Amino acid sequence: MSEDKLTPRSENFSEWYNELVLKAELADYSPVRGCMVVRPYGWTLWENIQQALDRRFKETGHVNAAFPLFIPMSFLEKEKEHVEGFSPELAVVTHGGGEKLEEPLVVRPTSETIIGYMYSKWVKSWRDLPILINQWGNVVRWEMRTKLFLRTAEFYWQEGHTAHATEEEAREETLRMLNVYADFAINEGAVPVIKGIKSETEKFAGAVMSTTIEAMMGDTKALQSGTSHYLGQNFARAFDIQFTNRNNELEYAYTTSWGLSTRFIGAIIMTHGDDKGLILPPRLAPIQVVIVPIYKNTEEKARVMEATDRIFRELKAAGIRLKVDDREEVTPGFKFNDWELRGVPLRMEIGPKDVEKNAVALARRDRPAKDPQTGASTKLFVSQENLAATVSQMLADIQQSLLERATAFRDANIHDPKDYEELKQVVQNGWAFSYWCESKECEAKVKEETKASTRCIPLEGQPSEPGKCIVCGTEAKRKVYFAKAY
Amino acid sequence: MSEDKLTPRSENFSEWYNELVLKAELADYSPVRGCMVVRPYGWTLWENIQQALDRRFKETGHVNAAFPLFIPMSFLEKEKEHVEGFSPELAVVTHGGGEKLEEPLVVRPTSETIIGYMYSKWVKSWRDLPILINQWGNVVRWEMRTKLFLRTAEFYWQEGHTAHATEEEAREETLRMLNVYADFAINEGAVPVIKGIKSETEKFAGAVMSTTIEAMMGDTKALQSGTSHYLGQNFARAFDIQFTNRNNELEYAYTTSWGLSTRFIGAIIMTHGDDKGLILPPRLAPIQVVIVPIYKNTEEKARVMEATDRIFRELKAAGIRLKVDDREEVTPGFKFNDWELRGVPLRMEIGPKDVEKNAVALARRDRPAKDPQTGASTKLFVSQENLAATVSQMLADIQQSLLERATAFRDANIHDPKDYEELKQVVQNGWAFSYWCESKECEAKVKEETKASTRCIPLEGQPSEPGKCIVCGTEAKRKVYFAKAY
Repeated sequence: MSEDKLTPRSENFSEWYNELVLKAELADYSPVRGCMVVRPYGWTLWENIQQALDRRFKETGHVNAAFPLFIPMSFLEKEKEHVEGFSPELAVVTHGGGEKLEEPLVVRPTSETIIGYMYSKWVKSWRDLPILINQWGNVVRWEMRTKLFLRTAEFYWQEGHTAHATEEEAREETLRMLNVYADFAINEGAVPVIKGIKSETEKFAGAVMSTTIEAMMGDTKALQSGTSHYLGQNFARAFDIQFTNRNNELEYAYTTSWGLSTRFIGAIIMTHGDDKGLILPPRLAPIQVVIVPIYKNTEEKARVMEATDRIFRELKAAGIRLKVDDREEVTPGFKFNDWELRGVPLRMEIGPKDVEKNAVALARRDRPAKDPQTGASTKLFVSQENLAATVSQMLADIQQSLLERATAFRDANIHDPKDYEELKQVVQNGWAFSYWCESKECEAKVKEETKASTRCIPLEGQPSEPGKCIVCGTEAKRKVYFAKAY
Repeated sequence: MSEDKLTPRSENFSEWYNELVLKAELADYSPVRGCMVVRPYGWTLWENIQQALDRRFKETGHVNAAFPLFIPMSFLEKEKEHVEGFSPELAVVTHGGGEKLEEPLVVRPTSETIIGYMYSKWVKSWRDLPILINQWGNVVRWEMRTKLFLRTAEFYWQEGHTAHATEEEAREETLRMLNVYADFAINEGAVPVIKGIKSETEKFAGAVMSTTIEAMMGDTKALQSGTSHYLGQNFARAFDIQFTNRNNELEYAYTTSWGLSTRFIGAIIMTHGDDKGLILPPRLAPIQVVIVPIYKNTEEKARVMEATDRIFRELKAAGIRLKVDDREEVTPGFKFNDWELRGVPLRMEIGPKDVEKNAVALARRDRPAKDPQTGASTKLFVSQENLAATVSQMLADIQQSLLERATAFRDANIHDPKDYEELKQVVQNGWAFSYWCESKECEAKVKEETKASTRCIPLEGQPSEPGKCIVCGTEAKRKVYFAKAY
């Protein structure tokens, strides 16, 4: 548990993050440089993320499968941009079963190549299309400067890989999955993301077009939280995914890929957390409600635990994820801090007086313990009658309030600088939403001089009129977000 | 789909298996030697296995987590028997991020070592115990003679790793998880397994005691289908998992590990399948019911499809996993064969006459299409009234009947040879259940002369009296199963 105090978020955001991940027992460093251990509390959060996404994938017609961890080095080399993008990050297996391998194997950094190879075996005719497969698994991209969940050599994700008979269908799929990600992020994670298109510089190695959901963290930096790529016929040509179309002509398929990773746990931590620790959105929280029974003697204990057990069973039957903290060796105050650190959305206290009044006390994690004006406790005393309904409603309120708060924070920190000088200032502590001519030169100049990169050209909220590039002043069709990013 | 005919199981069991896995689209060979691709139909079966097991793990107090894919070579060397057991099978990463690594990393063949290292960081006091963690993931054991699901370099599994304050608790956990596996295998997979203890020769590298569930395949060979190991203090000593016990003394923890893999898919195929293809147990089948609508013209089609859609919705709402095969380009006969190959437990046919009679026709996959005596069709005509209940009951009957058939087959092929000569004969086509003195010499002799190994000393069904070793004739306390194995 948390014996030392957590560095407040307001004091040092980066330290706060690093300490919090460890203290809340979400993850730990491993003896293998760059690799993380995801501890049970963090993994349960990931399992809830997986379920929320997997349901959406299946509803949109996708199925899961599993492709090999190892990819022959020669496969990566078949798509020129792809290998250039990934080769600095590869982990390479050179020996197997005590012998040197004829061809080195790469531990997959992503699976377009090996899946492309298999699709070329499976696809013969337009009748075999579309193929709509997703894979849950681990990937490796060599990385020495570890930041748990955000930057690790091995991480966990899902990667969807689809093949289609027409460009139109594949482009539709790319946007469909971008929308699935945005819906998930907003409605499950309470993370208000912006959907948009990546610049040529920022796009996936081998894609024709990359789309992204971008989120603003509590320090105003951007976090790319999920991406969906239209790959055109690039990988189909490299791996010979050909099919006979309806006119009986041989054609290359059109493919997409899309992924969301354990990085999203970082997005949740940095979007909602505060000085006291995590605040987890109720829909994804491993524990939605923690019950702390409070008593002074065995007589009180008997009465309190009877009510606690009854309420536990009632809420559990209603599908609420909850836990009773019945530790004897620590005080209620210690428990309050502990579960606040771990971000449990709702704390329920049950004491002898509550039992007497047929009530419980509820403390919302997203509200301060005391009213900032009056100094009065913000605890809510509610009846035990219809408690499951009361609690479910409050969890829904917390979910909604987290989303609103994060949206307000984001909007307050997106600026519309009037010129390049102002842009240089605003991106130090926020995002700039500005016209950009879409040239690599202007993008590079901003990055060089401010460390802010282009995050995305948003799909929604573009002005109807063209304007002037904020960097070079030439005509610009669309606006882009500039921001420092994780 | 299946254009070429499947080699009948009765003709060549091994060919039948290899062809069936491919034709039913459970899995495919990959371009990486030794690695498999698990296709969506196979992966959905695995997902159902995962859910059935994961529920049992959580009910017994376990939580999931994730540990690194890579293990420093030096870790494996810390447990002498462990490294000896696994070193011939290792895949080794020597390069990362373009540079040679200081210490080679092994792609995990199993995770006792790296998890042991982390437990040593997490465990300080008896209050931190037990730790009850499971991990779902992939492991690699170098293997060139691929047999899909049964023998591949990369495979998927779960590995539980627990640490306890006392030997008694750890031994209890070992047996608890063995019982979980047996319950799963019997009640979900309809695979009648025998629980027992592995011989010293056959036990896990580094264990004090290994327990196993052993199943008899359709060719009478044995398949080890899941194992649970009591590791004593071996790994705790190697990785310094020490805790302060209740008497304030420093002590090494007692650990266990247990695993069940995608091999179990092989067990399902080889336990239940027949000449026509797979027969999947309803509780795990990706598709429990396939509806084949039958019509000759558009007028019939309209009526039949109206009933089909209605029944589909009704059964789906009742939680039945089902599919409508509405392909226009193939005949009903083709569809029947196709779904029989894929082992869907129940086929429902809906034609114009059925619609008229408010009925449907049901064909059970576990019954021949025609009565062997009378030659009459075995299809059942049932009312559309309460169809979900009728179907659910029939699926439960099929589940039960598969288990009974497999149990009867197994029992008919377990022999009690009167002497060593007879043992040598019976293990050619079955199992021998015989007294054994538990010496390595007698075990080795049997293996050398018959290719049968000791499968397990069963925990149940031992005679009350000691006897004479079937090989050497000296006193033997217990009986063991001898069988050829996968």
